[in-house]
Amino acid sequence: MFDNSHIRLSLTRGKKVSSGMSPAFNLYGCTLIVLAEWKPPVYDNRRGIVLVTATTRRNSPNNLDSKIHHNNLLNNILAKIEGNNAKADDAIMLDQDGYLSETNATNIFVVKKGRVLTPHADYCLPGITRATVIDLVVKEQLTLEERRISLSEVHTADEVWTTGTMGELSPVVKVDGRIIGNGEVGPVTRRLQAAYKKLTEQSGVPIPTYLKT
Amino acid sequence: MFDNSHIRLSLTRGKKVSSGMSPAFNLYGCTLIVLAEWKPPVYDNRRGIVLVTATTRRNSPNNLDSKIHHNNLLNNILAKIEGNNAKADDAIMLDQDGYLSETNATNIFVVKKGRVLTPHADYCLPGITRATVIDLVVKEQLTLEERRISLSEVHTADEVWTTGTMGELSPVVKVDGRIIGNGEVGPVTRRLQAAYKKLTEQSGVPIPTYLKT
Amino acid sequence: MFDNSHIRLSLTRGKKVSSGMSPAFNLYGCTLIVLAEWKPPVYDNRRGIVLVTATTRRNSPNNLDSKIHHNNLLNNILAKIEGNNAKADDAIMLDQDGYLSETNATNIFVVKKGRVLTPHADYCLPGITRATVIDLVVKEQLTLEERRISLSEVHTADEVWTTGTMGELSPVVKVDGRIIGNGEVGPVTRRLQAAYKKLTEQSGVPIPTYLKT
Amino acid sequence: MFDNSHIRLSLTRGKKVSSGMSPAFNLYGCTLIVLAEWKPPVYDNRRGIVLVTATTRRNSPNNLDSKIHHNNLLNNILAKIEGNNAKADDAIMLDQDGYLSETNATNIFVVKKGRVLTPHADYCLPGITRATVIDLVVKEQLTLEERRISLSEVHTADEVWTTGTMGELSPVVKVDGRIIGNGEVGPVTRRLQAAYKKLTEQSGVPIPTYLKT
Amino acid sequence: MFDNSHIRLSLTRGKKVSSGMSPAFNLYGCTLIVLAEWKPPVYDNRRGIVLVTATTRRNSPNNLDSKIHHNNLLNNILAKIEGNNAKADDAIMLDQDGYLSETNATNIFVVKKGRVLTPHADYCLPGITRATVIDLVVKEQLTLEERRISLSEVHTADEVWTTGTMGELSPVVKVDGRIIGNGEVGPVTRRLQAAYKKLTEQSGVPIPTYLKT
Amino acid sequence: MFDNSHIRLSLTRGKKVSSGMSPAFNLYGCTLIVLAEWKPPVYDNRRGIVLVTATTRRNSPNNLDSKIHHNNLLNNILAKIEGNNAKADDAIMLDQDGYLSETNATNIFVVKKGRVLTPHADYCLPGITRATVIDLVVKEQLTLEERRISLSEVHTADEVWTTGTMGELSPVVKVDGRIIGNGEVGPVTRRLQAAYKKLTEQSGVPIPTYLKT
Repeated sequence: MFDNSHIRLSLTRGKKVSSGMSPAFNLYGCTLIVLAEWKPPVYDNRRGIVLVTATTRRNSPNNLDSKIHHNNLLNNILAKIEGNNAKADDAIMLDQDGYLSETNATNIFVVKKGRVLTPHADYCLPGITRATVIDLVVKEQLTLEERRISLSEVHTADEVWTTGTMGELSPVVKVDGRIIGNGEVGPVTRRLQAAYKKLTEQSGVPIPTYLKT
Repeated sequence: MFDNSHIRLSLTRGKKVSSGMSPAFNLYGCTLIVLAEWKPPVYDNRRGIVLVTATTRRNSPNNLDSKIHHNNLLNNILAKIEGNNAKADDAIMLDQDGYLSETNATNIFVVKKGRVLTPHADYCLPGITRATVIDLVVKEQLTLEERRISLSEVHTADEVWTTGTMGELSPVVKVDGRIIGNGEVGPVTRRLQAAYKKLTEQSGVPIPTYLKT
Repeated sequence: MFDNSHIRLSLTRGKKVSSGMSPAFNLYGCTLIVLAEWKPPVYDNRRGIVLVTATTRRNSPNNLDSKIHHNNLLNNILAKIEGNNAKADDAIMLDQDGYLSETNATNIFVVKKGRVLTPHADYCLPGITRATVIDLVVKEQLTLEERRISLSEVHTADEVWTTGTMGELSPVVKVDGRIIGNGEVGPVTRRLQAAYKKLTEQSGVPIPTYLKT
Repeated sequence: MFDNSHIRLSLTRGKKVSSGMSPAFNLYGCTLIVLAEWKPPVYDNRRGIVLVTATTRRNSPNNLDSKIHHNNLLNNILAKIEGNNAKADDAIMLDQDGYLSETNATNIFVVKKGRVLTPHADYCLPGITRATVIDLVVKEQLTLEERRISLSEVHTADEVWTTGTMGELSPVVKVDGRIIGNGEVGPVTRRLQAAYKKLTEQSGVPIPTYLKT
Repeated sequence: MFDNSHIRLSLTRGKKVSSGMSPAFNLYGCTLIVLAEWKPPVYDNRRGIVLVTATTRRNSPNNLDSKIHHNNLLNNILAKIEGNNAKADDAIMLDQDGYLSETNATNIFVVKKGRVLTPHADYCLPGITRATVIDLVVKEQLTLEERRISLSEVHTADEVWTTGTMGELSPVVKVDGRIIGNGEVGPVTRRLQAAYKKLTEQSGVPIPTYLKT
Repeated sequence: MFDNSHIRLSLTRGKKVSSGMSPAFNLYGCTLIVLAEWKPPVYDNRRGIVLVTATTRRNSPNNLDSKIHHNNLLNNILAKIEGNNAKADDAIMLDQDGYLSETNATNIFVVKKGRVLTPHADYCLPGITRATVIDLVVKEQLTLEERRISLSEVHTADEVWTTGTMGELSPVVKVDGRIIGNGEVGPVTRRLQAAYKKLTEQSGVPIPTYLKT
């Protein structure tokens, strides 16, 4: 389980002494679940993926802050089902005001006339890969704008990609039936993919090799 | 485990073949979890309970419809924690427009000048006990208004009660530090409690008695 | 052009003396455009139609009241394109709060446990056929509820139909990939279709017959 | 038709084969309409114009993104009618949250204590003249803030101007009955007007002169 | 000070022991202010009044419930200033969703095809005169609909009137420049005015007459 | 009344000629009220204060712009009462979208990983002390981010403080029952407190000393 492995850590409040919502019932301390799985890459990062925009909107901090990393993902699952219905790889979710937030599973970046745009982390998870890619955009001397982005800007973008721990940078070649750019992985995407690969090679901790003896 | 028993049924999509949000991974069929528990009544239906209003708002159908009965209850748990902090029994949750929806665990009714008010089932679960009590209000020849209710109407109400499977009708004697009515269980509440008790005695299926032989 | 004909009337402010938004430039009086077209029925009212829910929300009275009958239909066209992408006959549009409004072209009705539901005319056009069908539901001694309806209520409905001048009552057999009822035209739909047909036969003005001589 | 001429380009989906909303009916290809008109300047850029704030709010990207440049302008026409009723030159439109978006026909800039403010292009058209003026503000070494602006900031501004292709920079001397600054064209406005004039003289393509022979 | 007199009662928390927002500083008990004033009728109930719609929206229960009767009327005063600017008698205020709430000073009723409409008391004060007139509408065997009303319904109404303690029923003959009905006091308005007059004569306590001796 | 004195200036429209909302009745010119009071510091700036988040949301510019400095403070008083009920020093108020605005009486700052965050002045008063502290943060070579902040960011902050004329910089050591940092005044807070103290000593006008002779 060295390569293509995926490890998911879940920390729960732990076993309850009785049913009920109150955390006061979680008396036994937390439980850490480590789920390791052999899993090849989910997204096709060479030829790109296809997205569709869901009717389901992302949570608002009025009810459940997207900055809380939790597993109450029914909101996202409803969008993912919409994506499945449209035979798309994932579904774009808008925020309550109709602006881009993220997909049901990843953060999102848009390239237009050489500028790299990504939504404020107001209605999306401020993911680790997202933060890394924001840094790389700046290091690559490209302009990074964190701002509200509308769907028509996605439809007319030069390039779009998503970011996530599993998928790293996944190029998006079609959104809502509109071909993005020329339908192939764009130059800014490839440049950031290369920078990301280089960074993980340099700063990542290599998996130790065990020798059969 | 006959009396004071509580049985919670949870139906899940079942075991997944891989991690991920898509229901396409739930290939093994559904799992029904039956959790039976000896549990005395949670709420004090004789002397009444105390509520506080949470800052956390109830979900909107834009992201997660309150009519879906699910266990992604983090939204409610956040409100329950606010209730715990205020040493209240439960927390009132408002909808995104600032109107009453329900508590973190139960539906809610308000009595004002002989009229019984309850929120539309727009931002609350249209619970079974709620439906039963709405019917009983009509049978008792009281006026039932299903409409938007504001918090100041709760603060100045003559009587307030909550409804739920576990608690049946629980009188509310204090909300946000304001005493409701005279701070005791009101006459309309007692009348509906009696009608509910009578109904369950008449229409409920009695628990079979096993004889030791 | 007697049968299967469709006549569309458009009343404009008329020719302008100069470009510009102000109605003060429309000095020549109104123009009535009468567009007659031979057009067979658009919807398959026997086997039913398929809907998908759009991400595009209906206009709010804050910017453009749905009660104004106008031809600035870009909002609806955006939803219709989503419907086309999903190979659906039309697209359901939600209002800004996430409740059902109408489709891009028709009003909508939902049947659940014998009750007929339709949204308030707050975010939909209060169409003539809608009003006629509401009257017929009452005449048929069925319960009519005009209220906020959420998408999960549509997905789990017993029957759904749309109404419009062109399509009259069009049964909906699938919404967002979920089969409605058993996927066939339901009994309440058929009853209302029959009542509507009878009404138009009785109260409609027959098209005069011209004789060749 | 050399000077004071105004050319409006409209690109439509072209003739339809049948009535109906679907772009699938536009089979004949696009139509480009070139409307040239002799038209003297609409706004008085020397003495300034008068604005009133409309009750009609600008479209939200939830229903119709302000970044789409289209001719479904009924939303703006409703505001323009309010402006006409108040005998104002144009009407300010707020966004759904109550912040400044633009006027029914132009973008808007506000000067306060030497800083030049303009709304994010979230609920307004990111117009070409707006972009040019933003660049000029920076070139003139003034501070440019793109942010949410409230109406009370407009009422108490030192200077206000609008921008558009037709009107270029039009000083605003009165808003909702409040005199802006001292009611005359302010120094920052004049400086930007001069910079804009210089830019168009330098970078614009001069109209060719035809000689009668 | 018998006839045409106006008595305004204000109940305050009373004198504070120190500046600051907390009601904990109001230690001296409440203060009742009785302001009596000779004041002829404010509105012309014979020929009708003129309204304009304000851009300022009514408070939401999220911040200040319209059901609380208080004197923090800056929200309404901002709308009243808009009315003054438009030389109107008062200003219509919409709620945050763009629906009719009330004017800056009175409740509002709309008549369309014989039906009497008034907004839910969600974003307006449930005034005493409003409640009395609602009762009278029913007693007069007219249909009363309490529902969301949009501005275009006001513009195209047959009749409009406002209600308040001071003005009783004040006919509205013009809104936003649109003549209501034929611009004169309509038959339903006159009928309700007469019913109201009769009611106050019958149920009001007559002012005692003092005799000079 | 030299030290520990507090002077509150209120400017009103002045005496009215009649009751009523219209500023047209304020004919006598403005009234300036100068309320001087001996008042020791309200907040404990050494050991810190405790906050709770209110359910009451801050005003929106749709109804009452937070940039207008007025005394219609009922909105804030409702939140302050919630704070009193929770035995907190003040209450945090969120905006209508669920983001941090300010407390009922002061602006608010959050420190996370060395970065100093404060909300945009969209739903809070852009206070003088807030502006001064923003300047000091920059002078201290710390990073200042003016952006939307969610409540979960406050709960997990390293440091929190409030600012106001009365309290200057008041450290916050507990919010909604969560200890902030280690529950003591943090290093960034102390640094800014010192910088603020130094600034007022340098730039403040000393109170003249009167000598008894």
